Amino acid sequence: MIIINSRKELQKFALEQKKQGKVIGFVPTMGFLHDGHLSLIDIARAKADIVIVSIFVNPTQFAPTEDLDQYPRDFDRDANLCADRKVDVIFAPTPEEMYPDDASTWVTETELSKPLCGASRPTFFRGVTTVVAKLFLLTQPDFAVFGLKDAQQLFVIKRMVRDLDFPIEIIPGALVRDSDGLALSSRNRYLSDDERSRALSIHKSLLEARELIEKQGLSAIGSALENAKNIMASAGGNVDYVSALDIDTMKPPTPHTSQLLVAAACFFGTTRLIDNELIDL
Amino acid sequence: MIIINSRKELQKFALEQKKQGKVIGFVPTMGFLHDGHLSLIDIARAKADIVIVSIFVNPTQFAPTEDLDQYPRDFDRDANLCADRKVDVIFAPTPEEMYPDDASTWVTETELSKPLCGASRPTFFRGVTTVVAKLFLLTQPDFAVFGLKDAQQLFVIKRMVRDLDFPIEIIPGALVRDSDGLALSSRNRYLSDDERSRALSIHKSLLEARELIEKQGLSAIGSALENAKNIMASAGGNVDYVSALDIDTMKPPTPHTSQLLVAAACFFGTTRLIDNELIDL
Repeated sequence: MIIINSRKELQKFALEQKKQGKVIGFVPTMGFLHDGHLSLIDIARAKADIVIVSIFVNPTQFAPTEDLDQYPRDFDRDANLCADRKVDVIFAPTPEEMYPDDASTWVTETELSKPLCGASRPTFFRGVTTVVAKLFLLTQPDFAVFGLKDAQQLFVIKRMVRDLDFPIEIIPGALVRDSDGLALSSRNRYLSDDERSRALSIHKSLLEARELIEKQGLSAIGSALENAKNIMASAGGNVDYVSALDIDTMKPPTPHTSQLLVAAACFFGTTRLIDNELIDL
Repeated sequence: MIIINSRKELQKFALEQKKQGKVIGFVPTMGFLHDGHLSLIDIARAKADIVIVSIFVNPTQFAPTEDLDQYPRDFDRDANLCADRKVDVIFAPTPEEMYPDDASTWVTETELSKPLCGASRPTFFRGVTTVVAKLFLLTQPDFAVFGLKDAQQLFVIKRMVRDLDFPIEIIPGALVRDSDGLALSSRNRYLSDDERSRALSIHKSLLEARELIEKQGLSAIGSALENAKNIMASAGGNVDYVSALDIDTMKPPTPHTSQLLVAAACFFGTTRLIDNELIDL
């Protein structure tokens, strides 16, 4: 496994591999890897000649009030985990390496990124689409793997790839949960034991919403979301949003909706957690 | 020479050529080719194994009030000119082929695109950067050639390429003039004989500005621009802007400025023409 810090060096390596006909699989991460990330790496490893994992806590997707400085980092641990999983290249740039002082170009997606996390974090998706576009151009992957934990992010990235004609397949990786049902997230380490046990209400509330909607159809969405909200609030959560949207439009479902995203964001203490269920209609 | 209308087909062709180690040179155009375009194609031909020319009147860079429908088109003539210049591929998509109905992704450059044409045409550069990003991803060029007639566009594209890490060299092509000094433009065909002879004042005014600034230095910029404006106005031009900016910042020059763009946009009748001089400091 090699570790590359330089954009130019990574791109040179990637273009060379492409010329040799190698299939490149890419897994972008912010590091502090957990089993969710590792499952994405396994998907890439099974399909690619060369697996590139990026580890970069991207400042442009954090608002000034958010947890950029506190975000957990442990590069040596991450590198060992990547080596165990037979990753070929870790790309780990500094913010200064990624962004010139006078950087002034953004990639923005204006529709799918509007509701949910886009409404709560107005500059988040702009940061994500821009850094992912850069990472795609640097790693030149045939495919990239994104986790369904960040479902809206996955749909926004797929839209960007379609709209800008990136020659890249976007492969979803299943959401991975801890044994108690909590969706894995690097941010879970912020939680006290008490917060963590109360945070289980997110998954519980979304499972109940799924059950109600699967049984009673789209007309039950209103009461299902209300019930979910109450479950989280009763557990002491400060609900940011809980919503059910068509995955293709990120708007309320219609009779044409094929898949419904039921997603929630909820604070326990100062930690904002997200989770979701996907329902085939 | 082959003519391709499909995005997928073009990208497949381009990726195949890259795998074979071929150098791809790309010249994006809106068609109705003149000697300015042909000089860009010659630059590409001299350096590339495969020369791709796109011919696409891009709707997203026109405002609703502008000349999208009137913009001159003559594909057969363009195709003959390209064949004469040994172009390998013309990419000529329809707007429907380029943009899905629900396209929602933009590439924007927020600094260099602000003044000059960006101030007069607020959605112009967003349209340009987005379509050029798409064309780059479809044609996978090693280099692309842009004319210095659209100097601000060239600097904006170079910034986009740097910021997003496109592995593409941007090569400038010199501005080409008609024998009377008028900068070549597909829009010149809108001009009546009278408008055309009066439009020569644009080049004249910028040459005088260049002379003044080269003789007297940056302190002469104010009077040089005032004089240029008067020359165009006296010829019956409706001056949109005339300005002198640092090419690296698109802001007023400082003692660190290495090259100055003196640029004008001026209407004669309903036709908006642009021209510029570049001054080494």
